[in-house]
Amino acid sequence: MNVSVLRLGHRYVRDDRITTHAALVSRAFGCDKIYMTEVDDSILKTIKDVNERWGQGSSNFKIEIISNWKHIIKKYKNTNSCIIHLTMYGINIVDVNFSEIIQNNHKPDILVVVGAEKVPREIYDLADYNIAIGNQPHSEIASLAILLDRLFLGSQFIHSFNGRLKIIPTKHGKKVKELN
Amino acid sequence: MNVSVLRLGHRYVRDDRITTHAALVSRAFGCDKIYMTEVDDSILKTIKDVNERWGQGSSNFKIEIISNWKHIIKKYKNTNSCIIHLTMYGINIVDVNFSEIIQNNHKPDILVVVGAEKVPREIYDLADYNIAIGNQPHSEIASLAILLDRLFLGSQFIHSFNGRLKIIPTKHGKKVKELN
Repeated sequence: MNVSVLRLGHRYVRDDRITTHAALVSRAFGCDKIYMTEVDDSILKTIKDVNERWGQGSSNFKIEIISNWKHIIKKYKNTNSCIIHLTMYGINIVDVNFSEIIQNNHKPDILVVVGAEKVPREIYDLADYNIAIGNQPHSEIASLAILLDRLFLGSQFIHSFNGRLKIIPTKHGKKVKELN
Repeated sequence: MNVSVLRLGHRYVRDDRITTHAALVSRAFGCDKIYMTEVDDSILKTIKDVNERWGQGSSNFKIEIISNWKHIIKKYKNTNSCIIHLTMYGINIVDVNFSEIIQNNHKPDILVVVGAEKVPREIYDLADYNIAIGNQPHSEIASLAILLDRLFLGSQFIHSFNGRLKIIPTKHGKKVKELN
């Protein structure tokens, strides 16, 4: 199962840190890619640095800058992939049948659409699933994390990254191994 | 089980949006309270507005501004509560025994410590559990969301808020009911 993320409605400067976190979560939770429009160079630099130090993972994580989100949606639609839009107005995650999403062999690829403040109305119709991580306002980063957890079933936390740096999990303290 | 969050190491302006998201996630995921030091008024205003419109929930969610995080940690230590620090250097979440944490009757209250860039070294020793939501760098908001999900076991998404506004979950679109 290949999962990519489409970040929509990013507001320059105001959303930079949130978008950086969305990209970092996409990488750390085993996604292949995050698609973004017009972002600040600092976001690209952060991900480049993290990939260099901590590894790109077996999914070879990268950012792809796009000029038009509609082309991406169309590409996923044409390949019969599954488009999930995260929105507080959608079906509550507790009522979503994830085995249906995961086991549907006609839809091997998943695109997760993560909006900032405003998302074009069309997205609600274009998405196969509009899913709410609870029907309360909170954070698109939290929503992305929980959705990916339901899709990857916890396996994202043991995903191999093969980076130069590797943490040795410790009860009290910090241990990092540097590979040559 | 009462869960509160302590936000540490907030850097003024730079972390405002991230801290706002941490507060919103704490509220939406059924925590009682978030403790914070010196934050921008915009964060307080956002939470006040959300509480007024969407409800404070049965846990009566609020922000408590504190001058010294050590007093809070001490309070939890003195009442034999459980302190969980989220850090990428800790024990990987897949290796944490959550039933031990949840079922420990001597520790009914849980304090979740969520740091920004730098966290004082003492926290690693003061925490009962240093837990990593995977041992890769990503986002404290994602970490908080996943931890709360493991503690509340999904019940946070059906937590009742009794607000003025209520979403009617919808497959494609937006439906909001306004209560008088």
